[in-house]
Amino acid sequence: MSDKGITPQSEDFSEWYLDVIREAELADYTPVKGSMVIRPYGYAIWEKVQAALDSRFKATGHENAYFPLFIPYSFIQRESEHVEGFAPELAMVTHGGGEELEEPYVVRPTSETIINAMFAKWIQSYRDLPLLINQWANVVRWEKRTKPFLRTLEFLWQEGHTAHATPEEAEEEAIHMLGVYQDFAENVAAVPVVPGRKSESEKFAGAVHSYSIEAMMKDKRALQAGTSHNLGSNFARAFETQYLDENNELQYVHQTSWGLSTRFVGAIIMTHGDDQGLRLPPRVAPIQVVFVPIWRTDEERTAVMNAVDRVAQSLPADVRVKIDDREGLRPGFKFNDWEMRGVPVRIELGPRDIEDQQVIIARRDMPGRESKISVPMTDVPARVSELLDEIQANLFDQATTFLRDNSFSPEALATFREIVPETGGYGFAHAWWCGRQACEDRAKAELGGTTIRCLPFDQPEGTGECIFCGEIAEAQAVFAKAY
Amino acid sequence: MSDKGITPQSEDFSEWYLDVIREAELADYTPVKGSMVIRPYGYAIWEKVQAALDSRFKATGHENAYFPLFIPYSFIQRESEHVEGFAPELAMVTHGGGEELEEPYVVRPTSETIINAMFAKWIQSYRDLPLLINQWANVVRWEKRTKPFLRTLEFLWQEGHTAHATPEEAEEEAIHMLGVYQDFAENVAAVPVVPGRKSESEKFAGAVHSYSIEAMMKDKRALQAGTSHNLGSNFARAFETQYLDENNELQYVHQTSWGLSTRFVGAIIMTHGDDQGLRLPPRVAPIQVVFVPIWRTDEERTAVMNAVDRVAQSLPADVRVKIDDREGLRPGFKFNDWEMRGVPVRIELGPRDIEDQQVIIARRDMPGRESKISVPMTDVPARVSELLDEIQANLFDQATTFLRDNSFSPEALATFREIVPETGGYGFAHAWWCGRQACEDRAKAELGGTTIRCLPFDQPEGTGECIFCGEIAEAQAVFAKAY
Repeated sequence: MSDKGITPQSEDFSEWYLDVIREAELADYTPVKGSMVIRPYGYAIWEKVQAALDSRFKATGHENAYFPLFIPYSFIQRESEHVEGFAPELAMVTHGGGEELEEPYVVRPTSETIINAMFAKWIQSYRDLPLLINQWANVVRWEKRTKPFLRTLEFLWQEGHTAHATPEEAEEEAIHMLGVYQDFAENVAAVPVVPGRKSESEKFAGAVHSYSIEAMMKDKRALQAGTSHNLGSNFARAFETQYLDENNELQYVHQTSWGLSTRFVGAIIMTHGDDQGLRLPPRVAPIQVVFVPIWRTDEERTAVMNAVDRVAQSLPADVRVKIDDREGLRPGFKFNDWEMRGVPVRIELGPRDIEDQQVIIARRDMPGRESKISVPMTDVPARVSELLDEIQANLFDQATTFLRDNSFSPEALATFREIVPETGGYGFAHAWWCGRQACEDRAKAELGGTTIRCLPFDQPEGTGECIFCGEIAEAQAVFAKAY
Repeated sequence: MSDKGITPQSEDFSEWYLDVIREAELADYTPVKGSMVIRPYGYAIWEKVQAALDSRFKATGHENAYFPLFIPYSFIQRESEHVEGFAPELAMVTHGGGEELEEPYVVRPTSETIINAMFAKWIQSYRDLPLLINQWANVVRWEKRTKPFLRTLEFLWQEGHTAHATPEEAEEEAIHMLGVYQDFAENVAAVPVVPGRKSESEKFAGAVHSYSIEAMMKDKRALQAGTSHNLGSNFARAFETQYLDENNELQYVHQTSWGLSTRFVGAIIMTHGDDQGLRLPPRVAPIQVVFVPIWRTDEERTAVMNAVDRVAQSLPADVRVKIDDREGLRPGFKFNDWEMRGVPVRIELGPRDIEDQQVIIARRDMPGRESKISVPMTDVPARVSELLDEIQANLFDQATTFLRDNSFSPEALATFREIVPETGGYGFAHAWWCGRQACEDRAKAELGGTTIRCLPFDQPEGTGECIFCGEIAEAQAVFAKAY
């Protein structure tokens, strides 16, 4: 345990994760088994995620709408792979208004079915296409083993649902939206990701192709951070979602869906955090700059607070600032507290700093002494703006280096086996795979639960030999232990 | 029926309302009885409502959080009035993950109980108070008679939940947040409201006092547009939500809750709409200015679209603009279409306007010919900014005049009776009321379902005689037919 009450990452990464969530007040357990409360500080991070995604969805022509929470059970059953995939995880509403329902409702685990019921009504002709919709919503999946943000009974997400005239357009949309996720992950959350296609066994229940972005957590395990699906006409056939084409002939629409959830908050925590707690990239940080005033006497307090206010006022209006004027707490306690909460920039200001017309700035992306610089008060606005950009870039660089340093290409199964530990992650293994389920299953069985995360878009040239069976393989897959 | 396919308000206001919702594509019915889909244009209005409220909540020190959708049934039962009020409207989850639950979950109809379970954990000492939380969420109440936006099985809302050290602070918060709602309603949505206290029979199940803002729809019926409750220590006692005061003694917290929902979109429709469709106040309008280019030949099209783009580019960046370049539709059709959708400002631009270096501007808040002016192209940016302010103010003035013209003070029950029609509304009757339930019940029975909407904060001086029993009355109540 550190003095902040958190377990070191090297000792137990899972405990570290839960400790940080508790101490930084990101989430809490509830009396509803498997459901969490997202506390204000955690929710504020989610709001930043939402804002960044929402503006990107709108910029690419998508509109928000809201569909019912409840779905008639018979709807879920219409697409055969879909019901098979989701049936074990459903929450069922059997009674309403004091009476038993004739047909139970399902609490939506995802909304393809209810949305297709509406799309079938709204789409008449090719002129109605493409239809580009997004929904911000809660969904419920009855998970047995839960963990805050990563896997909870209920979670918040956005789910995009689109309908197109041709298979090509649907495929293009699915790939394009995965690119939007990658752009958000890397340029907003500073989380480097590997985009690629899911194997057949890992794809969404009802999809033709599924794509994902895979991030590497600091325990070297993979986290699926966002998914995008080409649904083909599977749901369109189940719900008769058809349009009249330019030749006045009825055609099924071609669809996509794509989602990113509060799980991403977990990705941010586990990509950037260290033994002092959270480290938040400035673009998703609810507080970007925290002032810790230092005083002993009331007289000092007045002078220091005046100076703090003056410096804070001088910052650009779009910088998110907090002044920690709490009474009865030592500065050292406050330093620890804001480090735990991952605030990118801390500004310390005491009586001697007023004399020197300077402040001490500590940046969260660097360790210990390295992190501190003194800055003349007049330079603070410019320096803070620069620093926020630098920290954003540096956290991304650190995570990118970590991802690169822990990615490898085992040539033979024997060498692959050597680096797979009993528990925890070992990084991303890029290895040739023949594409057959049997070899995918061997990974799981022989390599301690290793799974294929995706077939990365970025592939080496030519072909190779499948690392399991030695037969010809067209593509490499990323093998990893996953959350 | 008008040429827009909507019933005139004077003929059947309820049909007019449903017609506008359908034709302006605000919402749609779903296969889930009583649940609606909020379509993109309706949802975009809700997003404006959300943004305006959310910034006000944050400016008054509230933080967003997220609590579970499911609530153990036993929690609902802990506060006796609360369970009595909500039991008939509950949706029950009895099965999850393929198994019957030991204790059923309720789908939240409101979150006082689950939030108190968390508050009891988070609040230890007076230093933790006040605790000021808001949640944006969906809730479910099993309503038998539903109507889009006004009353649906599931709806979207925000629910504020706060905990305070003293009864006075809780009362102050409840009143203050009602003021925030009034500010939003009048200054953002241009909906004038009467703020006041609810009678005992109309208050929230579990509250000490309830307050509401009451708006008058164009059929002269009242719509409760937002509510705020002083919960006292009712829930605190049920959930042992206690704190150690400065003398180290355990005290119950004093609480409030307050909510405003997608119902408010209905209030906007019915406050401002006319026989041509919606009329949206600029501050909640998803599109504030629509350009309708007019051309016959391809050559004209190119010249006109260039001019439209140039004028549109010249507008201030924060004006929400749409260019209707749809092919194959006559300008007259487009005019009707955007009038239906209530866009405040329409700009028409054709080949002759290019020659004259002018545009035609039509404002949605004025009828027919009155609404049109020609404006030199160079004046458009300034004129549009002015117009948006003028339209915002004018819609509020029109609604305020309507509210005033349809408010009256009957001196005797006989005169009150005369003005109550069989169906529909008659306006707001400000009449003395003794405060007794028996007289309140007489209003309902003898005046065709009339109810007390609130006891307005704004009261005449002195006392009067109850309009029903003639006994001394300390205050006037607003009597009206309500949604």
